[in-house]
Amino acid sequence: MVSYMETLGSRAKAASREAVTFTTEEKNRGLLSVAEELCQNTNTILLENEKDIQAAEENGMKSALLDRLRLTKQRIQDMAKGLKEIAVLDDPVGEVLSMKNRPNGLRIGKRRVPIGVVGVIYESRPNVTADAFGLCFKTGNAVILRGGSDAINSNKAIVHAVKEGLRKEKLSQDLILLVEDTDRGTVYEMMKLHNYIDVLIPRGGAGLISSVVENSTVPVIETGTGNCHIYVDEWADLNMAVDIIENAKSQRMGVCNACESLVIHESVARQVIPMIVNRLKLHQVEIRGDEKACTFSEDITAAEEEDWGTEYLDAVISIRVVDSFEAAVEHINTYNTGHSEAIITENYKNALRFQDEIDAAAVYVNASTRFTDGFEFGFGAEIGISTQKLHARGPMGLEALTTYKYIIFGNGQIRE
Amino acid sequence: MVSYMETLGSRAKAASREAVTFTTEEKNRGLLSVAEELCQNTNTILLENEKDIQAAEENGMKSALLDRLRLTKQRIQDMAKGLKEIAVLDDPVGEVLSMKNRPNGLRIGKRRVPIGVVGVIYESRPNVTADAFGLCFKTGNAVILRGGSDAINSNKAIVHAVKEGLRKEKLSQDLILLVEDTDRGTVYEMMKLHNYIDVLIPRGGAGLISSVVENSTVPVIETGTGNCHIYVDEWADLNMAVDIIENAKSQRMGVCNACESLVIHESVARQVIPMIVNRLKLHQVEIRGDEKACTFSEDITAAEEEDWGTEYLDAVISIRVVDSFEAAVEHINTYNTGHSEAIITENYKNALRFQDEIDAAAVYVNASTRFTDGFEFGFGAEIGISTQKLHARGPMGLEALTTYKYIIFGNGQIRE
Repeated sequence: MVSYMETLGSRAKAASREAVTFTTEEKNRGLLSVAEELCQNTNTILLENEKDIQAAEENGMKSALLDRLRLTKQRIQDMAKGLKEIAVLDDPVGEVLSMKNRPNGLRIGKRRVPIGVVGVIYESRPNVTADAFGLCFKTGNAVILRGGSDAINSNKAIVHAVKEGLRKEKLSQDLILLVEDTDRGTVYEMMKLHNYIDVLIPRGGAGLISSVVENSTVPVIETGTGNCHIYVDEWADLNMAVDIIENAKSQRMGVCNACESLVIHESVARQVIPMIVNRLKLHQVEIRGDEKACTFSEDITAAEEEDWGTEYLDAVISIRVVDSFEAAVEHINTYNTGHSEAIITENYKNALRFQDEIDAAAVYVNASTRFTDGFEFGFGAEIGISTQKLHARGPMGLEALTTYKYIIFGNGQIRE
Repeated sequence: MVSYMETLGSRAKAASREAVTFTTEEKNRGLLSVAEELCQNTNTILLENEKDIQAAEENGMKSALLDRLRLTKQRIQDMAKGLKEIAVLDDPVGEVLSMKNRPNGLRIGKRRVPIGVVGVIYESRPNVTADAFGLCFKTGNAVILRGGSDAINSNKAIVHAVKEGLRKEKLSQDLILLVEDTDRGTVYEMMKLHNYIDVLIPRGGAGLISSVVENSTVPVIETGTGNCHIYVDEWADLNMAVDIIENAKSQRMGVCNACESLVIHESVARQVIPMIVNRLKLHQVEIRGDEKACTFSEDITAAEEEDWGTEYLDAVISIRVVDSFEAAVEHINTYNTGHSEAIITENYKNALRFQDEIDAAAVYVNASTRFTDGFEFGFGAEIGISTQKLHARGPMGLEALTTYKYIIFGNGQIRE
């Protein structure tokens, strides 16, 4: 007996085989057609979304989550706009990254190709449905989407519109497949579908991500957890430090590249900590510090050990005072999640050492951690920010959704 | 309580932090020092290996496996030579793959860096111990090695010599850590050590690899399974086809890039199948074919369904006759393991289509599949041949043991 999920897997695999032969022009036409259908289907999508909203309200969903779930005409137009923007991006597929002649005359090239079938497991943000499709489709992949059960009606309506857009361009509708059975069991089955799914990308909270990492036999790309630090070095421009810290903490609190913890060299702590405290008070940020930090301001409460490892995603920040550059690096490498880390310094050697020694996707000198983002890095839309080291690290744009194959041109070569 | 494996993990992580700062010169000196120590310790290593051999003989180990386990003076010299060859290879670490200025003045570079801690799980080939160390060390990684229990004395002696070589160059001896407790439980614990180990590479048979894929929460790179096909197209040069098939099947039978299955276009089947059969008979190769193939030679026995998916690693090959190019692609994409696939054709369009449509790490036109190998591709020594699509595909040389980080140079930038 072939299960529901295996059927989806096998349909996606077949569709992905077709997609490897699409030209960039075909893919761009597909994206524009889908964008058009999303706009055409606005009313249906809104009606279906309303069902999800009502059910969520009845289940007592919190307003912040309700807001993520809710679609509006504007949000649907933004989805369509997102797809049009992806159509404009360069197509990475087909690029030959290198090609060499071997002594025996073999010509060996390394060509960028689609991954095949991408699985995305996410929570109740229906806009991910269109975004993830757009990025996977532009790179010649099929996508299997498993969104939260709270958003199932919205997701079905969006996927229906996407399929309609594909159909009108005579492209396989199996390039997007929604797991409509949102039973918990289907997620676990999806995580074991390594014969069909080439990579699984979880998008959501830490709980979702660790469950996927623990259970999946499909290769996973971990995304999104950011316990980001800013280290104010002995040689920092203190005014710059305060401006950057304010930005990194308060410009948007609930995002993965927001700053969650400060590390301050003790030689500048007495001067800079009160400046930081005053600035962050403007944004109602609660500050938790180690023993030394607390001695520099009455507005700092004592941090517990678990504070150092916490991604608050909220108006809270921790402060640790260290007696050396080395201690700062040690602290950050112990507690960071491999996302974005910054040093504020005017010292040449420390700037370079920080970039060498800190183990993270993005290591900044004298800039806000908030820049770790596909658009800010110039890649365009992203499917997530990878915090692991294999395959892709940092913002994952189109290239992260490709792999390569070796293409070898011979004329009868055999191995001696 | 910190477990034995966690202690190893934490020591490896600490050593890997030191290794990111090593210069190429330091690493090359380390490799030469270790090579020297291996030679100096030849007698001890041989004595310890003899213990393993005796125990294996008492346990009735087969002679082919005994041969893999056995070390000789020559084999130890070859290990040392391998390390010297790695010293000569270009160091990929530190290369800035791209660097761009953003409109706000941020300079964002993508720099190649070590992965961190590499775990290798392998069977009873003690030479893997030195090879894996050499590749990981050259790329600034620490390595945790878990070899087969049959080789434990040999591995201890080799690791002792490696550590001695590191010590003499004042480099951390924790850059190589051997799991000395070869209890089955330590392997499973190793597979769950994702807080310390950044990537796990299993090297061995299909059973070992699938057990690691099923159980590991550490990202895994699958290696080595090769159900490789050669497709003889309607437009093939048949003499070339027979030469290449002979080479790919018989030049070395037990290796992952050997050819295991032939797909023949029916318009040339009558002519080429007897030629192939005659040539392969010279090497005592058993041939199993589908119904059509059997009609062209009495030396072909009937293949079962399971033959199409079998990597024989032996003097056996299967033959399938197809009625079109498309059917050949379909057959190969259904049964191949993503390793190496070849077409023999003089037809331009079919050659390019085959390279486009076949999903495998290495896709050949008119050459033997036996070339999929780090040395043949010009990368030097390899840590394995990846058959998955994430991170690294095909022969994995030094670059596959690196990741990248974004290094960002600012002068006070904050996000609007």
